[in-house]
Amino acid sequence: MTVLSFGVDAQDGNARCARVITARGSFRTPCFMPVGTRGTVRAIGVDDLERLGAEVVLANTYHLMLRPGAEVVAAHGGLHGFMGWAGHVLTDSGGFQVFSLQPDVDDDGVTFRSTYDGSTHRLTPEGAVAVQHALGADIQMVLDVCPSLPSPPEVVRLAVDRTARWAERAKGAHRRLWSAGSTQALFGIVQGGTDPALRQESAKRTVEIGFDGYGIGGLSVGEPRDEMLPALAAALEILPPDQPRYLMGVGDPVGLIEAIALGVDMFDCVLPTRLARHGTIFTGEGRINLRNQRFAKDPQPLDPSCACSVCARWSRAYLRHLLRVQEPSALRFLTLHNLHWFLALVQRARCAIAAGTLSALRAEIAAHWD
Amino acid sequence: MTVLSFGVDAQDGNARCARVITARGSFRTPCFMPVGTRGTVRAIGVDDLERLGAEVVLANTYHLMLRPGAEVVAAHGGLHGFMGWAGHVLTDSGGFQVFSLQPDVDDDGVTFRSTYDGSTHRLTPEGAVAVQHALGADIQMVLDVCPSLPSPPEVVRLAVDRTARWAERAKGAHRRLWSAGSTQALFGIVQGGTDPALRQESAKRTVEIGFDGYGIGGLSVGEPRDEMLPALAAALEILPPDQPRYLMGVGDPVGLIEAIALGVDMFDCVLPTRLARHGTIFTGEGRINLRNQRFAKDPQPLDPSCACSVCARWSRAYLRHLLRVQEPSALRFLTLHNLHWFLALVQRARCAIAAGTLSALRAEIAAHWD
Repeated sequence: MTVLSFGVDAQDGNARCARVITARGSFRTPCFMPVGTRGTVRAIGVDDLERLGAEVVLANTYHLMLRPGAEVVAAHGGLHGFMGWAGHVLTDSGGFQVFSLQPDVDDDGVTFRSTYDGSTHRLTPEGAVAVQHALGADIQMVLDVCPSLPSPPEVVRLAVDRTARWAERAKGAHRRLWSAGSTQALFGIVQGGTDPALRQESAKRTVEIGFDGYGIGGLSVGEPRDEMLPALAAALEILPPDQPRYLMGVGDPVGLIEAIALGVDMFDCVLPTRLARHGTIFTGEGRINLRNQRFAKDPQPLDPSCACSVCARWSRAYLRHLLRVQEPSALRFLTLHNLHWFLALVQRARCAIAAGTLSALRAEIAAHWD
Repeated sequence: MTVLSFGVDAQDGNARCARVITARGSFRTPCFMPVGTRGTVRAIGVDDLERLGAEVVLANTYHLMLRPGAEVVAAHGGLHGFMGWAGHVLTDSGGFQVFSLQPDVDDDGVTFRSTYDGSTHRLTPEGAVAVQHALGADIQMVLDVCPSLPSPPEVVRLAVDRTARWAERAKGAHRRLWSAGSTQALFGIVQGGTDPALRQESAKRTVEIGFDGYGIGGLSVGEPRDEMLPALAAALEILPPDQPRYLMGVGDPVGLIEAIALGVDMFDCVLPTRLARHGTIFTGEGRINLRNQRFAKDPQPLDPSCACSVCARWSRAYLRHLLRVQEPSALRFLTLHNLHWFLALVQRARCAIAAGTLSALRAEIAAHWD
């Protein structure tokens, strides 16, 4: 039984254009999910996300369980009520952040210290399901073990084994919530580093447990793209074609388009929002850094080919001025532009898949980005 | 000859409800002008100002002449083109900021150091007109001498004399721009500290020179309200009833309403925007500080009696969370609420004047604010 369905509307090679239907509604894929770490996408509001046409926002379990606390979010109607957001919410399990904090890991779970106040906390597969249930996510992710790359083979192997055992436990916890009426979906996560064989083993074990969709984790964590894509392709061969596939944390334009070509449906990445806050802008011609002096008197919009509300109204000179005198609105405007750029990119990918022209879009992106 | 007209629609005692018509269009008074120091109201955009219904924004000559420079603003179509703002812009002369920097003042003008890079700059009455012309303001202010209060009588007297002589020179510079086709309005400024006689002398000398409207400067700079209001009332007795009167820098709720009752039409103040960034919220019941722990789980809007877009959507608990984890969007949301509150207050004053019920509004404000 699943609370989520996946209808493929068009295919171009392995790439698919589809619609994910959940208890909340539906969203189109390939999709890019802006990252709303602490219950908001940094520097903008959910009113902005609506105007941008974003359909899914990702929220971080690690941050929200510590501030303001899952029970506070739950008391305000979950993330949808708390954030005032009627679209979809996907929560990560907290694992990715926790594993970056040198935690104590054992077979049962992981103990870590809060980056806010140093207090000690514990996440288990069952606990991560419970927290995400309290947060009210439409789509939960299982707690996985995510090693940095490169890691020794035995570390990657242990991560695959633990991730599989934890996935089984998460599934059990989630099944109990379903029986009690929950309509949240749960995605498993494939690990295995850059080893295609291990990726396939991890994918098989995850599919055997059975989830509403599948995340591919532990990639784009430092390895070169020509090691990432074969590992990704190996995992995708195993994953069921009639369920959504989510490449976690990948969002550089080339990586995103190549992964779409391999058959990935969902993406999240802090790149557009984080780079925006440093003045780096995505354009049809590649990146520009707005702090550069050459933009001081430039009357052009950030990207002359862009249809966003920021490009419609303000010049590079004005936005550079706001950035330079540290106006908070600069962060919002640059974030709006970069997010629009990524949302427009996946929209173009959807159109290209439907038209059978994805290879032309891949060539265009490859020509402007590395 | 004037480029500005002032049509009084209703009166209640000395208070007036009017419409100021300029070369750009018109705006209603009493009006509150949000402060857009560096070419934007801090933490929000001009798109937000439009949604708030603000009709006039104040921009700071001192800041804009230094960053990005008046010539950059001029090259982008003045502040309207640069900011993407179709409403009215009033610029101060830069004097208020410059006099806070312990400048060298002589009869000809004032020399000061930039707070950005320590470089030396000079403002004269003619120079201030030229800079504001380049900035493209709809309403310019003359360069005045603004002493802090309390100041020795001879300092206040010298400020009145210099302000009058500088006003004469500003008028001359402005007349030459008019002859060349400028449609900008110019307001004189009344000084005189808290001495009613000196305020009346300053008002008379300023009116004799003749301007499109009159600012009352050098008040709300540290003196108690019961010294401010008599000095203000003395100046207003002299100012022509058929021209707009602008009380510079005043924006606490009681001061604003009392000044409206005395016959003031225009206001600006950093209070709503600055306090918002520190978590202090204006409500119908008085101020609250959102950082207070008691709001951590409060599902109410910032002000249950408020009709703003922020109160319509988000709880105190959510906004406090954003503030606490230092999300820039918190600054925007709290700024939007506080500005809405002030804009709604002057709107209520306009309605009350038209209905002849301003005294009831004064009593209500006095009951909740000190």
